[in-house]
Amino acid sequence: MSFSAFDHPYLSALVGDDEAAGFFSAEAEIAAMLSFEAALAKAEAQWEVIPAPAAAEIVACCRNFRPSMERLRAGIARDGVVVPELVKQVRESLSEESKPHLHMGATSQDVIDTALILRLKGVCDLLHSRVLALQGEMEKVEETFGDRMLMAHTRMQAAIPITVRDRMRAWREPLHRHMSQMDRYRTTDLVIQFGGAAGTLEKLGDKAEAVRRTMAAELGLLDAPQWHSQRDRIAGFGSLLSLLTGSLGKFGQDITLLAQMGEEIILAGGGGSSAMAHKQNPVAAEMLVGLARYNAAQAGGLHQALVHEQERSGAAWTLEWMILPSMVGATGAALRLADRLVRDIRDIGRKS
Amino acid sequence: MSFSAFDHPYLSALVGDDEAAGFFSAEAEIAAMLSFEAALAKAEAQWEVIPAPAAAEIVACCRNFRPSMERLRAGIARDGVVVPELVKQVRESLSEESKPHLHMGATSQDVIDTALILRLKGVCDLLHSRVLALQGEMEKVEETFGDRMLMAHTRMQAAIPITVRDRMRAWREPLHRHMSQMDRYRTTDLVIQFGGAAGTLEKLGDKAEAVRRTMAAELGLLDAPQWHSQRDRIAGFGSLLSLLTGSLGKFGQDITLLAQMGEEIILAGGGGSSAMAHKQNPVAAEMLVGLARYNAAQAGGLHQALVHEQERSGAAWTLEWMILPSMVGATGAALRLADRLVRDIRDIGRKS
Amino acid sequence: MSFSAFDHPYLSALVGDDEAAGFFSAEAEIAAMLSFEAALAKAEAQWEVIPAPAAAEIVACCRNFRPSMERLRAGIARDGVVVPELVKQVRESLSEESKPHLHMGATSQDVIDTALILRLKGVCDLLHSRVLALQGEMEKVEETFGDRMLMAHTRMQAAIPITVRDRMRAWREPLHRHMSQMDRYRTTDLVIQFGGAAGTLEKLGDKAEAVRRTMAAELGLLDAPQWHSQRDRIAGFGSLLSLLTGSLGKFGQDITLLAQMGEEIILAGGGGSSAMAHKQNPVAAEMLVGLARYNAAQAGGLHQALVHEQERSGAAWTLEWMILPSMVGATGAALRLADRLVRDIRDIGRKS
Amino acid sequence: MSFSAFDHPYLSALVGDDEAAGFFSAEAEIAAMLSFEAALAKAEAQWEVIPAPAAAEIVACCRNFRPSMERLRAGIARDGVVVPELVKQVRESLSEESKPHLHMGATSQDVIDTALILRLKGVCDLLHSRVLALQGEMEKVEETFGDRMLMAHTRMQAAIPITVRDRMRAWREPLHRHMSQMDRYRTTDLVIQFGGAAGTLEKLGDKAEAVRRTMAAELGLLDAPQWHSQRDRIAGFGSLLSLLTGSLGKFGQDITLLAQMGEEIILAGGGGSSAMAHKQNPVAAEMLVGLARYNAAQAGGLHQALVHEQERSGAAWTLEWMILPSMVGATGAALRLADRLVRDIRDIGRKS
Repeated sequence: MSFSAFDHPYLSALVGDDEAAGFFSAEAEIAAMLSFEAALAKAEAQWEVIPAPAAAEIVACCRNFRPSMERLRAGIARDGVVVPELVKQVRESLSEESKPHLHMGATSQDVIDTALILRLKGVCDLLHSRVLALQGEMEKVEETFGDRMLMAHTRMQAAIPITVRDRMRAWREPLHRHMSQMDRYRTTDLVIQFGGAAGTLEKLGDKAEAVRRTMAAELGLLDAPQWHSQRDRIAGFGSLLSLLTGSLGKFGQDITLLAQMGEEIILAGGGGSSAMAHKQNPVAAEMLVGLARYNAAQAGGLHQALVHEQERSGAAWTLEWMILPSMVGATGAALRLADRLVRDIRDIGRKS
Repeated sequence: MSFSAFDHPYLSALVGDDEAAGFFSAEAEIAAMLSFEAALAKAEAQWEVIPAPAAAEIVACCRNFRPSMERLRAGIARDGVVVPELVKQVRESLSEESKPHLHMGATSQDVIDTALILRLKGVCDLLHSRVLALQGEMEKVEETFGDRMLMAHTRMQAAIPITVRDRMRAWREPLHRHMSQMDRYRTTDLVIQFGGAAGTLEKLGDKAEAVRRTMAAELGLLDAPQWHSQRDRIAGFGSLLSLLTGSLGKFGQDITLLAQMGEEIILAGGGGSSAMAHKQNPVAAEMLVGLARYNAAQAGGLHQALVHEQERSGAAWTLEWMILPSMVGATGAALRLADRLVRDIRDIGRKS
Repeated sequence: MSFSAFDHPYLSALVGDDEAAGFFSAEAEIAAMLSFEAALAKAEAQWEVIPAPAAAEIVACCRNFRPSMERLRAGIARDGVVVPELVKQVRESLSEESKPHLHMGATSQDVIDTALILRLKGVCDLLHSRVLALQGEMEKVEETFGDRMLMAHTRMQAAIPITVRDRMRAWREPLHRHMSQMDRYRTTDLVIQFGGAAGTLEKLGDKAEAVRRTMAAELGLLDAPQWHSQRDRIAGFGSLLSLLTGSLGKFGQDITLLAQMGEEIILAGGGGSSAMAHKQNPVAAEMLVGLARYNAAQAGGLHQALVHEQERSGAAWTLEWMILPSMVGATGAALRLADRLVRDIRDIGRKS
Repeated sequence: MSFSAFDHPYLSALVGDDEAAGFFSAEAEIAAMLSFEAALAKAEAQWEVIPAPAAAEIVACCRNFRPSMERLRAGIARDGVVVPELVKQVRESLSEESKPHLHMGATSQDVIDTALILRLKGVCDLLHSRVLALQGEMEKVEETFGDRMLMAHTRMQAAIPITVRDRMRAWREPLHRHMSQMDRYRTTDLVIQFGGAAGTLEKLGDKAEAVRRTMAAELGLLDAPQWHSQRDRIAGFGSLLSLLTGSLGKFGQDITLLAQMGEEIILAGGGGSSAMAHKQNPVAAEMLVGLARYNAAQAGGLHQALVHEQERSGAAWTLEWMILPSMVGATGAALRLADRLVRDIRDIGRKS
């Protein structure tokens, strides 16, 4: 299926991002969910909640488990979440002794939310390295052309001449702040979710915190009490993405306007037209504007999911699933396109 | 790729819709674009703009043409739109004599926008038949339980008893209005887009209107002057979808609250929990709420694309591509789930 | 207070609209609410639900009643809606005999929703006459300059020359459609809301429909069964407003780009700069873009209020109050500014 | 005028906030703008850019200057920004010698943006102290009732019993994070804006940075290079507000559901109904939900303004003016209402 341009066989070549997509394939989510179950078993064995042999079997099983996709589809359609069916399938492949020890004390949301955070960690790394690379490319342009003059425009009117460097400050400085924000997110918000049925880990008694702490370490996540109905970290991540694509959208908008006026920029590789052979369309720049507006609208939608009633809201939670991954896709695409666009700048500014 | 829950291997079983998805596969868009090229050639031959044999060859070629997806990907990444590359591939398979007559006088946007409208026509039919079926299912529930009593609630507080019929009016009446709106849309807004490079069909001279009229008839669309930078019909369609899912979201929210209070409804087939065997979660009802909020946010994003500058905005146009298809998916899913939910009502209201 | 730019002592001179504001003053709402109470009393007397002398006293009292604003403030802060306190104040000024007959069978939502529709009727008239006037001004520009040439731009690049008339079609045609939609809204959706406590008009027995029909006629509204938890008409009105401002935003965006390139338009009366005396900023055009984006975002927010649970949702209903009036303000301002902008066109297009 | 519920004579008693409103009155903005002009003159005198006597006269004049509101209205309608007219009026009241030294080297955006940040500083203080007070009230409730039992609900269904403390964690913990974010904002983002016509402070030569640094100190703001077309700090502030109201919306939603089920909470002071005397509506809780959804939608709109083209976008900048202040109003109101709501909790949870 390809309702989404980000998933579409050819539209995704325009506005999608293969690398970011890797984090949101079914396989990636399944692998992350199985990591959770393995880490849970390991930690529970370490703290003697379940027998060590059962844990070993669970860990081994999770390593290569391939669920039936057809049954997962039936399961999620019925349960609203894929975990009960996934756990059922894993359990079927365990020995009778180990069966009751799988998923012990956990609930679906623990699995899904932790599996999300595990992948957001990778997303943070990917975005961070791309922003860094983009900064590097921008620096090169600035080194070459920074002293050139450019006509400043305010309120869509020519103002006074500035340097290319002056203009580029507005493209580059927000990226520094976005990287700082993402770094902070990585050091405070990539936390495990583990709370059990209603957040109290009641089945683990006084070992609950120890198990959780061990699991977090095993998964490479920060430890924190359950946050299943506190969705500010998720909405906040969406805001970060939208700030980033918004700043790149400003860069794109500036380039389209330079390209339209035509005297202060030369771009390589503009897009062709099916009707007019002479045109060189600033496609990547336009996409940056479109992606910025897309993510801005999505950020507003994602914040609606903050109203997450009681201990678990199927409605608000699923709303996140519908919105956040595509925002990551849009952000990955925007960074990819911004990098291409800045490399396409053959000339910018006026020599005199 | 599966950034989008609507396209995801298993999440789509929850919030996706196979039938609606058919309209947004790459194959469906390609088929619709080739229909456009065939209808164009046929109409241009009829009005002696291009030779009849060339038209016949083009029509035959379009019937079964299978483009190279890899080249389409490269093409759209370069041009921002898939049409130049698609036309190039079709042209390669034509005789030398026919080559210049393909896509004669048209531009990419003509192809893409008309191909969208062709599929929205199918979408309208699908949604219409689903709303009709849903109305039928609701009528059955009302016939059986309509006279039962239900506690009305205002501002989240018990008010006075009403009948089940009274409550159901609020679920059913908006659906009638949404069907009327969709009917009106079908009779006024499913129009061909054909304007050429900048909307003036300058290559067709005084035959332009005749060709367009003939094409529209051939494609089963309404005839109208080009509207390539007038996007109100597209944004308006998104509003219709959001109104429909919003009304279904109200139905879903009501059911979740009835299910929570527990004494006035019995639902079949609620979803299971991985931690609590006793639960029967009203999954379909929750999804209706989530889908309503999703489409509401998207409608806001789609309206941003009304600011479509000059004769063609790559940024605003692509924003539509990123938003509208998923809204159709959400709407298809909401109607599918509402149908399931209303069938799952085993009992509603109090007998006394 | 002036959180809102539309209400602000000086910002409103930029983005507000005095005439549209008239519909949303406290006085206007109070007057509309008192009209409701008067029409209710009159209709109930006519159908012998309440005594004629009581009705006469109520009608007379409502005509000039001036409530204590301070007490209204305390009332709404307590009750979440102003009606209980307003009714209380009116009742205090009635004779003992008439007191019980005021507001008989009605509930707060009947009063508020009907008072809104009464004012939306005026809003429709205002917007309709403004769109008509704007069309007239655009026709004048087209008559004078329509045959001139203009460089078409697609994807922010010069394409081929078109006429000014060609460009203006994209500004004018959507306005026709928006007027049709508004006309349709006036003939189908300006309906009375009257349902009583939970929508059943249970206190009026078999006279309920007759009373409602009489009230509707008295108020100059269409008659329809209560729709208190069916909010599609309200969200749909917001969509209409956003479509209209979106089309005007496209006009504004086109003008800013023409002004930026500078060779194809001369505008009178651009705005000055505090730092650069030479500048002529296309302020009205910029505002059209900003107002379009504002309303697009609001439309998305307003659609969230479609999820209106049970018989009355304080949360969803109040969300409408926070969003819809400002959308009307933005629309009024956009039409006012579009009119000014089109009159400011001194020259457009190239003579040769 | 009162398009906005936040400014409305009586609706503001429900969803407005008097204290937050103080920052967005015309008077407050004028005072902040005059502070900017005074600080500019003072700093420029200190660095010998303008004569000390002129600075002294400017500072004295700004201290008590009362502009003509009527002329400000005409000015902003013409210029799109109020500053040129305000500066003109101040200049008229200066001696001939001092006239040219007013506003020296600055541009409108410097004045408006710095005046906004000055007031956001006060807003941060206000919100911070309110969150702190709210936390205190919540602690009291938790101390009294924390050990009581409450039925956890997941997916709108009863799950297992938890303690009141468990539920309250989800209300309290996000508030801590929001306070940390606001503290961070205060220490990094409350920066002066000073760039001159196009951001280069070209009129101040090598004294530009010194003047700016001195001004920042004078105004109690952080020093930073101009950021006039980098709007991430503004959009980011909106995100913070929406996260905060979203978390309060979750609190409100939980309370409405507790109140609906009725057995686990007793609230004082619910709102009355005009039709049903027995009802106690959880008005404050409902408002928290509505305000959360309002701000979520606004956050999406505000992020659209990140696409701020070139050195100054009249469209994107004005969009901020239309959105941000009302978000502050909604946030102030939400904190006010949350405080009232938590104080209204007379009893929560089950004793056994």
